[in-house]
Amino acid sequence: MNRAVSALIAVLALAPAFLNCLAASAAEPGRRDIVSPEVRADRTVTFRLLAPKVTQVALNGEFGGRQPMTKDDSGLWSVTVGPLDPDIYSYTFDVDGVATVDPRNGYVKTGRSTSSLVQVPAESPTFYDAREVPHGAVAVQWYPSKSLGALRRMHVYTPPGYDAAAKTKYPVVYLLHGSGDDDSGWTWIGRANFIADNLIAAHKAKPMIIVMPAGHALPQPKPGEGAEHYIRNATAFQDDLLKDVIPFVEKHYRVNAEAGQRAIVGLSMGGGQSLAVGLTHLDQFAWIGAFSSGGNLRGKTDDLLADAKATNKKLHLLWIACGKQDFLFKINQDFDALLTSRQITHEFHATEGTHTWRLWRPYLRDFLQRLFTPASSDSAKAAR
Amino acid sequence: MNRAVSALIAVLALAPAFLNCLAASAAEPGRRDIVSPEVRADRTVTFRLLAPKVTQVALNGEFGGRQPMTKDDSGLWSVTVGPLDPDIYSYTFDVDGVATVDPRNGYVKTGRSTSSLVQVPAESPTFYDAREVPHGAVAVQWYPSKSLGALRRMHVYTPPGYDAAAKTKYPVVYLLHGSGDDDSGWTWIGRANFIADNLIAAHKAKPMIIVMPAGHALPQPKPGEGAEHYIRNATAFQDDLLKDVIPFVEKHYRVNAEAGQRAIVGLSMGGGQSLAVGLTHLDQFAWIGAFSSGGNLRGKTDDLLADAKATNKKLHLLWIACGKQDFLFKINQDFDALLTSRQITHEFHATEGTHTWRLWRPYLRDFLQRLFTPASSDSAKAAR
Repeated sequence: MNRAVSALIAVLALAPAFLNCLAASAAEPGRRDIVSPEVRADRTVTFRLLAPKVTQVALNGEFGGRQPMTKDDSGLWSVTVGPLDPDIYSYTFDVDGVATVDPRNGYVKTGRSTSSLVQVPAESPTFYDAREVPHGAVAVQWYPSKSLGALRRMHVYTPPGYDAAAKTKYPVVYLLHGSGDDDSGWTWIGRANFIADNLIAAHKAKPMIIVMPAGHALPQPKPGEGAEHYIRNATAFQDDLLKDVIPFVEKHYRVNAEAGQRAIVGLSMGGGQSLAVGLTHLDQFAWIGAFSSGGNLRGKTDDLLADAKATNKKLHLLWIACGKQDFLFKINQDFDALLTSRQITHEFHATEGTHTWRLWRPYLRDFLQRLFTPASSDSAKAAR
Repeated sequence: MNRAVSALIAVLALAPAFLNCLAASAAEPGRRDIVSPEVRADRTVTFRLLAPKVTQVALNGEFGGRQPMTKDDSGLWSVTVGPLDPDIYSYTFDVDGVATVDPRNGYVKTGRSTSSLVQVPAESPTFYDAREVPHGAVAVQWYPSKSLGALRRMHVYTPPGYDAAAKTKYPVVYLLHGSGDDDSGWTWIGRANFIADNLIAAHKAKPMIIVMPAGHALPQPKPGEGAEHYIRNATAFQDDLLKDVIPFVEKHYRVNAEAGQRAIVGLSMGGGQSLAVGLTHLDQFAWIGAFSSGGNLRGKTDDLLADAKATNKKLHLLWIACGKQDFLFKINQDFDALLTSRQITHEFHATEGTHTWRLWRPYLRDFLQRLFTPASSDSAKAAR
């Protein structure tokens, strides 16, 4: 063997250095020896953080409240939680008052809030897992937004067997994320693509295209402008969606543009957006959903409420769900009562849980099964 | 206005709470008032972190070494750097010895190392920016890997005007990421899609498909098994690429399967992989590149070196580049010398810089322009 090839091999001796070499990687002494999170078969999970100089470390996770971590002699902090229900949970470490992601865990969510994610798997793959079924594709799709004067990004799911050149047109769902996420949230955390794959394979949902636009149309609010900013963002988002996203999708994907083949739904901020846009554009969206939604409907429900008969005729499904322990539960409950009192046909699903993805994945599974079926609109009509 | 609609509006009053409510979001007191990073027109950048209880905070960034941050009376740490060259930089905060991402910055890289990213924009959009040109699409594509017994993910760029049903077949580049990244790295950090869009629009590169597979075929190494793990991973990756990724791509995308229309290239670990796979499969890849590469070529260059004439006939381009300040520079330099001594036609580009994305974006720009052109292979032949 010659010298230069030996030299190239010599990099192996450097491997630990090599793997740690990126200038700004989250590297600390000994980090390669630490496993975090460690998910066991009994569904207990241990979290670890090497932080010898730190006074206090705690775990904040969707599995419940703040849990102090304890330090061993080497400066390794740890805590074990569970057994947890099979699910995907987000968490951060509180390091002397600074919320950080887990430096040993590459499953991190992006968007306006950053956190680490951990999956506690079920015994067999569940409705949001990748199963042995045909898989659709998810496109990270950039498009020019004239209304916002920017090139923007959305994610687009096309179902298994989608072929851009065939003649079939697909029904389309506009699926909106929450304020802490970005347009990757519904696939990266919400697993919308696998949920759709599994439902389609089981013939529980129609093959459909799912468009996941970016709901933050404006930059982050400045100090003190929260509420005002929220309204301005909703308006800007509506323009982007109706004037840019939808025309782009209809030009580049084979979607059916009829209201009866088009749904809008979202979670939290996105739920508010789906109601605000959907309920004021019933000629464009016959299927509307809102998961744990919050937002401003000022003046947006007047037409809807004024003529229940006309509204019910246009609306194939108005599907609202919220966790009973969600801080937004009461306003959703009140909205349900208002719709009932005005005889607007709708469904309200009050489930156990708070304001987390643990509810939104099953909500999506349930909602997608109701879409684009004559049965749903028939039963809605029958209920009148 | 009725009570329930008013109640829905009332959520506005809750907006700050609403935006901060996600259980595990990186929320700390006052975080919504903090801007970090703040990039100014003069290309100075201020980084900020609220951490009243912490003893020491420093900034580690690709813009150079460790920089202590200073604390004001409110517990806000900050440091200003620059003016910096226009570029995209990664950084972390060192919080009493714990490397963390910036909780105020949603631009975070995923993969085996986690860090925050910040772009210092050039005066006008540069080669890796989204410009007013036609844009290709990037698919997040899942595929079943029989060789690894898992469903795996890759990213696939299709050029503007790609139409799955047209008859044109496109040349294809297999573009491999480094050990700190995952298959999203080349688009999310490397901007490979915009680099290709811009080159294609300027007629500087052929319309091509770029396949970005996941280079970590095995789970993270356990303590002490670094070098051994590295070799096993390279072997497992090669199987996945040749037996699963490429057949899947050829079934689902209109790529040309001839060696003369197929390139393989990568950075760091991915550069080592592209040499290891490419140089042993010249019947499958006529265009090979390696950026700042490291890896194990033991026994892999014997055939290549044994018959330079046969090798040079098959190889349209062997393009190697490395930063002069990279810790891997010497082994790349030695490999260049070996290839020269054995009369293997190739190029070696030694540039200023270390082991960072600041080099890999321009390397990709330069490499893509050389691909699939008769000129490159002619000039290679002429050079013999």
